[in-house]
Amino acid sequence: VRNPSSDAIGAVIFDTYGTLFDTHSVISVLEAEYPGRGEYLTQIWRLKQLEYTWLRALGNDYRDFGEVTREALHYSLSTLGKVDDATRIERLADAYNQLSLFPDALPGLHALAGRRLAVLSNGSPQMLDALLHGAHIADLFEAVISVDAARTFKPDPDSYQLACDVLNLQPAQVLLVSSNGFDIQGAARFGLKTARIERFTADALRAQVAPGRSIGPAEVFRALRTQLEGFGAQPDIVVGSLPELAAEIRGM
Amino acid sequence: VRNPSSDAIGAVIFDTYGTLFDTHSVISVLEAEYPGRGEYLTQIWRLKQLEYTWLRALGNDYRDFGEVTREALHYSLSTLGKVDDATRIERLADAYNQLSLFPDALPGLHALAGRRLAVLSNGSPQMLDALLHGAHIADLFEAVISVDAARTFKPDPDSYQLACDVLNLQPAQVLLVSSNGFDIQGAARFGLKTARIERFTADALRAQVAPGRSIGPAEVFRALRTQLEGFGAQPDIVVGSLPELAAEIRGM
Repeated sequence: VRNPSSDAIGAVIFDTYGTLFDTHSVISVLEAEYPGRGEYLTQIWRLKQLEYTWLRALGNDYRDFGEVTREALHYSLSTLGKVDDATRIERLADAYNQLSLFPDALPGLHALAGRRLAVLSNGSPQMLDALLHGAHIADLFEAVISVDAARTFKPDPDSYQLACDVLNLQPAQVLLVSSNGFDIQGAARFGLKTARIERFTADALRAQVAPGRSIGPAEVFRALRTQLEGFGAQPDIVVGSLPELAAEIRGM
Repeated sequence: VRNPSSDAIGAVIFDTYGTLFDTHSVISVLEAEYPGRGEYLTQIWRLKQLEYTWLRALGNDYRDFGEVTREALHYSLSTLGKVDDATRIERLADAYNQLSLFPDALPGLHALAGRRLAVLSNGSPQMLDALLHGAHIADLFEAVISVDAARTFKPDPDSYQLACDVLNLQPAQVLLVSSNGFDIQGAARFGLKTARIERFTADALRAQVAPGRSIGPAEVFRALRTQLEGFGAQPDIVVGSLPELAAEIRGM
């Protein structure tokens, strides 16, 4: 019989954007509104959205993720021309409240039944409420933790501390599951256990950016966002999809 | 006779990377080493380099800009395949110590003769020394201020405070000159006066990303990095090139 050690996993916490939900699913709304530029806008929007979380957190200039998301959308649309329609921004930004679950998310979460499960997300409480209820997965989590309570964004150590406080666990007792390299890097540095969902492998990326291949916005996005960061600790666990996770952490 | 007011410009401080020096000039070294992928690597490298400054500053995990530059290069090269040659990283990263001055930089600096001029840069002291002496412009500046002294990166308010401390001026007495949107946004929020060098106009970008145009790494980079950010204050001054600046701030 294995004795529960003090650093056994006491809870599994999930990132949302890019991990449980596919941020690329906003493309259909954007493509309908800006034919031929849906892919471009989808990628620029997401890249600026993340950038603005870092700039605002670093600049002690917090606004919630809803506002950051609208600001990043406004910036992205502006690159195509003047934007002076606040109603359109509101309407398009709402696509982030209706993202698609990745197909592996539900079986992955169900395979972890019996564990304490939570969400730790950059999303505002309002956005997370819409997202999790819309996908009918809200009841699977003991806690839905928004960094908004700490008025900062990942990878600020305060965001990971917030999760430990809410769950009443030590960092080494918390496993963060994320496909975002910066989230894995920040959580590992803070002392959480980390599991990386490798949604796009190094080999797949290499094939897409090989000499002779045409590199567009989707490939640039994947090159920037889908790989393990170039500094910081390695994740404790790497899996290709969420259902593999339950087996990997058995006994931990 | 104009009385010098308390918020007259007491010093003009310049950003380096992208403002005085062209970060795109590393492309020849990269293209020679990775034929057909020079443009891609140039853009990914610069984007990750900036991203890593934000992630490290936000994560309380400072390393100097030389190390960040090497980490970002390593990441970028890794997207093309395994990288296990530290000598190659060192050699290629040295391209950031030999960037080309923008053609308008020298006339722009000379037009400001008589003003107190300084540099405020993410670059490490060693990198700035190589860059400014290599371009023979070190003597034009009263102070070369590296954020390294504050162990953080722009737009952390501490980086702008550092410049005020070194120059013994109040924020409103300092004019920051930059082509980087995040730098303008952060400096304006801190209370510096700001002058934006618009090296790539909104119209030029619009033409490049218009429907039907092919969007590659260079266009994605310009879309992400050459425009005013979508939040924060407007700059006090916008000019297309550095020589215009002297006339714009006459009497200020």
